[in-house]
Amino acid sequence: MGRIAVTDGMDDNAVNHLREMGHEVVLQHYTHDELESGVLSEFDAVVIRSATKITEVVIKNSSGRNGNLKLIGRAGVGIDNIDLSIATNSKVAVCNTPSASTHAVVELTIGHLLACARHITTGDRTLREGEWAKKQLRGTELSGKRLGLIGFGRIAQGVGRVARSLGMTLHTYDPYLPAEVAADEHCQLHDEIDEVFRLCTHISIHCNLTDETHHLVNAERMKMMPGVGIDNVPCGNHIVNCARGGIVDEVALLEALESGTIASAALDVFEEEPALDNPIVQHRNFHGTPHIGAATSEAQSRIGDEMATLLIDFFNGRKPKSMLNPEIF
Amino acid sequence: MGRIAVTDGMDDNAVNHLREMGHEVVLQHYTHDELESGVLSEFDAVVIRSATKITEVVIKNSSGRNGNLKLIGRAGVGIDNIDLSIATNSKVAVCNTPSASTHAVVELTIGHLLACARHITTGDRTLREGEWAKKQLRGTELSGKRLGLIGFGRIAQGVGRVARSLGMTLHTYDPYLPAEVAADEHCQLHDEIDEVFRLCTHISIHCNLTDETHHLVNAERMKMMPGVGIDNVPCGNHIVNCARGGIVDEVALLEALESGTIASAALDVFEEEPALDNPIVQHRNFHGTPHIGAATSEAQSRIGDEMATLLIDFFNGRKPKSMLNPEIF
Repeated sequence: MGRIAVTDGMDDNAVNHLREMGHEVVLQHYTHDELESGVLSEFDAVVIRSATKITEVVIKNSSGRNGNLKLIGRAGVGIDNIDLSIATNSKVAVCNTPSASTHAVVELTIGHLLACARHITTGDRTLREGEWAKKQLRGTELSGKRLGLIGFGRIAQGVGRVARSLGMTLHTYDPYLPAEVAADEHCQLHDEIDEVFRLCTHISIHCNLTDETHHLVNAERMKMMPGVGIDNVPCGNHIVNCARGGIVDEVALLEALESGTIASAALDVFEEEPALDNPIVQHRNFHGTPHIGAATSEAQSRIGDEMATLLIDFFNGRKPKSMLNPEIF
Repeated sequence: MGRIAVTDGMDDNAVNHLREMGHEVVLQHYTHDELESGVLSEFDAVVIRSATKITEVVIKNSSGRNGNLKLIGRAGVGIDNIDLSIATNSKVAVCNTPSASTHAVVELTIGHLLACARHITTGDRTLREGEWAKKQLRGTELSGKRLGLIGFGRIAQGVGRVARSLGMTLHTYDPYLPAEVAADEHCQLHDEIDEVFRLCTHISIHCNLTDETHHLVNAERMKMMPGVGIDNVPCGNHIVNCARGGIVDEVALLEALESGTIASAALDVFEEEPALDNPIVQHRNFHGTPHIGAATSEAQSRIGDEMATLLIDFFNGRKPKSMLNPEIF
């Protein structure tokens, strides 16, 4: 039986299921100082979302000779808040729930692409302000345009399928992707990321945040975008990011919105979160959401189910299915 | 050669094309009084959008013994602003451009469905107000839910195809629809409209405004909606109207938003337009756009092309393709 800290919340059903299986579950958020001083050493496992940072100090002061911590469960996908190599060196297992939130992010991405193209948030904002801005809000259609997907994993593939049903054609840059996966999804795979920017009026980000992808969407690449669709309609250029903050250079994006290089942009993720004093959120041609890509009842329920299964497998001596450092098992 | 009044604007390419063909095109908006006093009697044809009302008096004072008016062209679909029976009695042809704006409305409808389910406008509004409302904005997915399409013409069929790609199942009420059309589109056709409301958590309106459809979405029917998807997820009930104002009873909708019977609603069309003092636009779970369903560059260009063809055919003595009173030709 294990003692499990859940620091950023987890679906009720999953908590109940773990308790029914005899595990102790403590729902408690800890400050960065508490974590670094070893508060997790009393736990066998910790389940986090994005709000808890598991640094080198946290791991060292909670595992091995200093504590019981043997598993870090990320209820979600991105593990940029976990020091994976230190966890591996310290023989602490790291697991995430890679597919549970896929469809939630797909739907939000399509929603943001359409809200950009059709000025949905501006339409609502002006209505609330007592203005009937019908004449100023002529938009363009996604149909007949090229969508550039940066990264072509599960989420991008899902976005691509819906975008094709809307009449878009697909392009991607993903240096880790087998060519046949792109071909199966009717998506043109490019060797050079700049080629995707040169071709596409709509760019959507679906990669991890790494040194390689930091500020991958920069001033130079935004200037390459064509502004005109396959259908010869001048639709402007549009950027959507529902992946991770920091992949888009926000200073460059705000300048591109000011100059008109970018006609509209939507971000669900920001370089600094919560994004409260960020000037970009006030721009007329910008709209944002507060990192709600996986925030659906369905995704949270699937994440909870997957995490409970991972934990139960681990405590029963079985290798958890989605372990990111399987070599230590 | 004809003399054509264009009262609510038309795409530049279409105007130029008509002029190149030798027709005189006058771009001029007229007041209701000017129209009723017979200002159109000097024209052979008038091209309108939704802002110009062609009443019995307008037709009688501009056609037959009182004037030259022989054709009313509606650049768009809905003809609730034209007295068709008086036009027919007066031997004035009425034409619209029924398919040119289909895809524009399809994309806006999907955008509104997703913006409802994922609180996109609320997310943006709270961000602009300096609030990081991540925890309050958990949404639900369209996947696994039933979409009820009221009317199953071209637009609804297009919405249905994209909704299916998102994982929704389709239901419709359309007393004028051949059953095989619904079957071909994998949509269940119901004989009773109430059955669609009893089954569906998401309702989207795609019919004309007539006596039969006025306030078709009323308090009683909204209360029938199940609030829970096929996937057993309590997603609440959602209403989208990108068709015509007046089909949804707005007083009943506002009450249903207040009580929570309806979790979210999006309107592109209103009982009275422009919708400036309408209390519904201020509700937290409402979002709206100012009648921009057909407001894309692509749709306006296609509408202009179709209207120019209709006018040129008519002035050359050919029957225009989409004539709504072909019996007079």
